[in-house]
Amino acid sequence: MRIGVVAPSTPIGRDVADDVTALAARFFPGAEIVFHPQCFLVHRHFAGEDSVRAEAFVEVANDPTFDALWFARGGYGSCRVAEAILERLAPSAREKAYLGYSDAGYLLAGLYAAGFGHVAHGPMPQDIRRDGGEDAVRRALSWLTARSAEALEPNREAMPAAAFNITVFSQLLGTPLQPDLTDHVLMLEEVSEYTYRTDRAMFHITSNPAVRRVAGIRLGRCSLVPENDPDFGETEEEVVRHWCERSGIAFLGHADIGHDAGNRIVPFGAFRA
Amino acid sequence: MRIGVVAPSTPIGRDVADDVTALAARFFPGAEIVFHPQCFLVHRHFAGEDSVRAEAFVEVANDPTFDALWFARGGYGSCRVAEAILERLAPSAREKAYLGYSDAGYLLAGLYAAGFGHVAHGPMPQDIRRDGGEDAVRRALSWLTARSAEALEPNREAMPAAAFNITVFSQLLGTPLQPDLTDHVLMLEEVSEYTYRTDRAMFHITSNPAVRRVAGIRLGRCSLVPENDPDFGETEEEVVRHWCERSGIAFLGHADIGHDAGNRIVPFGAFRA
Repeated sequence: MRIGVVAPSTPIGRDVADDVTALAARFFPGAEIVFHPQCFLVHRHFAGEDSVRAEAFVEVANDPTFDALWFARGGYGSCRVAEAILERLAPSAREKAYLGYSDAGYLLAGLYAAGFGHVAHGPMPQDIRRDGGEDAVRRALSWLTARSAEALEPNREAMPAAAFNITVFSQLLGTPLQPDLTDHVLMLEEVSEYTYRTDRAMFHITSNPAVRRVAGIRLGRCSLVPENDPDFGETEEEVVRHWCERSGIAFLGHADIGHDAGNRIVPFGAFRA
Repeated sequence: MRIGVVAPSTPIGRDVADDVTALAARFFPGAEIVFHPQCFLVHRHFAGEDSVRAEAFVEVANDPTFDALWFARGGYGSCRVAEAILERLAPSAREKAYLGYSDAGYLLAGLYAAGFGHVAHGPMPQDIRRDGGEDAVRRALSWLTARSAEALEPNREAMPAAAFNITVFSQLLGTPLQPDLTDHVLMLEEVSEYTYRTDRAMFHITSNPAVRRVAGIRLGRCSLVPENDPDFGETEEEVVRHWCERSGIAFLGHADIGHDAGNRIVPFGAFRA
């Protein structure tokens, strides 16, 4: 079982790779985790230039000796390389699992839109730096190595699902990365956004005709919301309920996902009990 | 000549109305400016509840005694009322001019998408509080009262145009508010956004197949850009040039628009010399 780690957005430190490798050796001795050297490159905002990040992703994705591609970290940058990556993926790339969240959502979306069958929203190596982050990384590894049912988001209806950061999902609508989520449960989460921005993004998301074909929306955690002056006067759940009601989308309740150590795994697509 | 002012986003103070009224009396004695009382309401983030803001807009828009509807101010909120407003507009609403920018862009877009012929991007009453803001308000009034050519954005090609705030335009793509801008010069400006967010919004905008049919993009001023750590390493112009190049959209140069007193007027649609 080999897991390749690449960073299409921002870099991680070698200490993160070391700690994740040590944790894996202890609890998942059958797993070999290979951190591509690109993970540690620093080019301004990014883990290397666009072409370098794209090349590393394609290299791992197309390498049949890897069983999974694990996104190192979010941040910003994968939208800049997503289309260049997707057009270069070989048939072997379809066999492996892809796991990440937050900014990785552009690529998860594009992979799922392209019919990849093992795409999932869940913790990344950098999460080991969170409070309780070892649990998040162990959860990711238990899914990557054994598709552990305990790792999965538990509120899932017996229907297809997908999960995204609200801002990321908003910004990929109408682009070639947008997947068809007809009859899917769409799980959303957010971090560090003013409530009025979440309100605006939910206007954008729920006004999209293709999004209106989802089976419903579940809301994960919205954390580190900056204080607004004046106070927006609605919670994130009220905002999401408001736009669901206005757009005729069912609000299905909570999802156990978010920018935190508790972030559970949401495999995209058909429900598997 | 009667101009009705409404505030579908955030409120203005009565002092702003008084100062704009005094300025108009001095330089545009033929113009009567009527500030709808809704402009001064405060409901949390907004100038009154959604239903109240929508009602005031519809009242002024449908009143044939008004020659123009002038947006009082931007901020946030017009996306919440735009569709409710648009479905209630009477034929008389098509006769008048509509002037605003920033958050007003949702309604300008929807009006233009609905075939309204006198929609323009330009200064609003609240701009009188800017440094040099009297110039901005006089420019707006010279266009509203006499379609003054000096008020117009000067870099305009002899082709249809439209102008938007980058974030606002991004967030209306794929919604019923999105206008057909085929063969238009699209002018964009931004304020108070991190460069990485502008980069992300430009990915979203230039990846939209309908947007790729514009004649080209001109960039206005991007002001008050917060410092990012790490530095993004590209200017806003470099970002916009980058995405234009990647998407095959012509970059046509600068536009004399922005969140400032110099903001010139861009009438939407067919070029009129």
